Amino acid sequence: MEAKGVKLKETVILCIDIGGTMVRVGALDQQGTLLSVSETRFESRSGPEAGFKAITQLSKAILDECGRKRLLGIGLGVTGPVDHLRGTINNPFTLPTWDNVPIVDWFAKWSGTPVVLENDADMAALGEYWLGAGQNIQRLYVVTVGTGIGTAFILKGEIYRGINGAHPEGGHQIIDPEGPDCYCGAKGCWESLASGSAITSQAQSMLVESPSSILMSLSGGKINTVDARMVTDAARQGDQLAVEVVQRAAHYLSLGLINTLMMFAPDMVVLTGGVIKSLDLFLPTIIQAVQLHNVMVPTTQIIITPASLGYYAGLYGCAYAVLRQANT
Amino acid sequence: MEAKGVKLKETVILCIDIGGTMVRVGALDQQGTLLSVSETRFESRSGPEAGFKAITQLSKAILDECGRKRLLGIGLGVTGPVDHLRGTINNPFTLPTWDNVPIVDWFAKWSGTPVVLENDADMAALGEYWLGAGQNIQRLYVVTVGTGIGTAFILKGEIYRGINGAHPEGGHQIIDPEGPDCYCGAKGCWESLASGSAITSQAQSMLVESPSSILMSLSGGKINTVDARMVTDAARQGDQLAVEVVQRAAHYLSLGLINTLMMFAPDMVVLTGGVIKSLDLFLPTIIQAVQLHNVMVPTTQIIITPASLGYYAGLYGCAYAVLRQANT
Repeated sequence: MEAKGVKLKETVILCIDIGGTMVRVGALDQQGTLLSVSETRFESRSGPEAGFKAITQLSKAILDECGRKRLLGIGLGVTGPVDHLRGTINNPFTLPTWDNVPIVDWFAKWSGTPVVLENDADMAALGEYWLGAGQNIQRLYVVTVGTGIGTAFILKGEIYRGINGAHPEGGHQIIDPEGPDCYCGAKGCWESLASGSAITSQAQSMLVESPSSILMSLSGGKINTVDARMVTDAARQGDQLAVEVVQRAAHYLSLGLINTLMMFAPDMVVLTGGVIKSLDLFLPTIIQAVQLHNVMVPTTQIIITPASLGYYAGLYGCAYAVLRQANT
Repeated sequence: MEAKGVKLKETVILCIDIGGTMVRVGALDQQGTLLSVSETRFESRSGPEAGFKAITQLSKAILDECGRKRLLGIGLGVTGPVDHLRGTINNPFTLPTWDNVPIVDWFAKWSGTPVVLENDADMAALGEYWLGAGQNIQRLYVVTVGTGIGTAFILKGEIYRGINGAHPEGGHQIIDPEGPDCYCGAKGCWESLASGSAITSQAQSMLVESPSSILMSLSGGKINTVDARMVTDAARQGDQLAVEVVQRAAHYLSLGLINTLMMFAPDMVVLTGGVIKSLDLFLPTIIQAVQLHNVMVPTTQIIITPASLGYYAGLYGCAYAVLRQANT
């Protein structure tokens, strides 16, 4: 894919992935080569103006580093809700203070180039569709299991969009109405039961009653520093509490996946996000569930696979989104 | 919509809706006028050959009655699973003995015309899209709440199909993992908790402990004859047991709808099926749930409305499917 009338070797696409606590900035060429990349922690509570300033500083450094002269455009993948059509971030939930922020205008004025804004899950999915595990898959569903659970559906190469351009949120489907409250309004949504945060909070609350767990020593006795990574590490070592927490999360992860298979019957589900680094711990439960539910929908025909672009899937997706827009 | 080179006033489309216990047969013209229609109870256990014979007899009578000479094609809407591409019914669940039945071949040989087979929920949805509540709706989700729960998604006027043409089954999404077992393999799927059958079995099992319910007199003391209609009638009269059963079903109906809104963010959800005749009893709970979950997806913008074609939506959809095929 190539933008018309632009010399390939001079051009660069600026790709920015804004998460709840980190910003990743990359410079990519039109073939999807990552020319330079950096990331930084970022504190959304300092406000959108301060955040924008920090991101543009990092962006400038990345563009200088890659040495390319002509900026083709900017792709922004941002933890949602975002409004793709209006170009605004509306996410006071995981980006406190970032509500109704006209981020596309800001970047367009800063750069003088086109800017595309999408939900970060959509960008990661586009990346996997372009260069990753989901290449040329007609019905590609991507689930990001990290701090939260985000979903994206790429249908015949296009981001599936809902009413007025809304990004669907499969991560907030209700899985167990007896589950914990979530900021989304639901009790027991998928994110509240199977995300990294869910694993963390479940382990922390159980740890109070089970101080013999090795999580106590792994965390230096500081229960509130236990995180999902520690839990999966402890589970690998056979720690009973950690195994229980992982099994519970695997159960709920499976339920949400089964619902996804029932409702979309996709060709492939690509799993990504921090928790999926420990996919081997969850996979036996997932496989069992898929086999059990192979009655109404041919679930066992559906490929469930980890993402292949890993950490930078969102950046590749940003580049693809800019290129697609440049070519339409 | 008009098939090429065919004189409109002579042509007719044969539309057949095969449910678990009833077959409906209609003759429609190309404008969607129902020229003649009939239905009959039908016992799938007698086997597909006997069923086919009974349906063709009824079809012949309907075609004779409408007086049109030229049969344009046949549309078949059948309770799923069916295989649209292979033209087979694979449903030993709600059509016992009907497994791998090449129904399209049978009807094609019988009629010498094109035959289109779709899941009955898809046919009803096409009908509502063509002439009913969902006309020109870009993202139209249809939920049929009857004996079971069937779903269909019409995206830009096309039936959304899953892997290898599979029909997704939103009715078998898991809503409450503590719920009852379903033939689909799940515990606590939507159908097992909010369908007419779910209402029936919940009421029957509660009635054993609460013989003072007016359902006892409504059913003449025969608990196993209590059905969903009796329950909604009793709830209208303020019967405590019936009100409880209806509230429970309304709660679960809402949860499945919320998940549908979260995962598809459609422009409209059209509700149909026998249970929806009592939609007024369920609506307050649904509205409350929609308002509560209006955080991640703009759920309150989504229109939720009963079907407008009622009983015959599937027949209209059959005609539309035949016309579309004739015009492609």
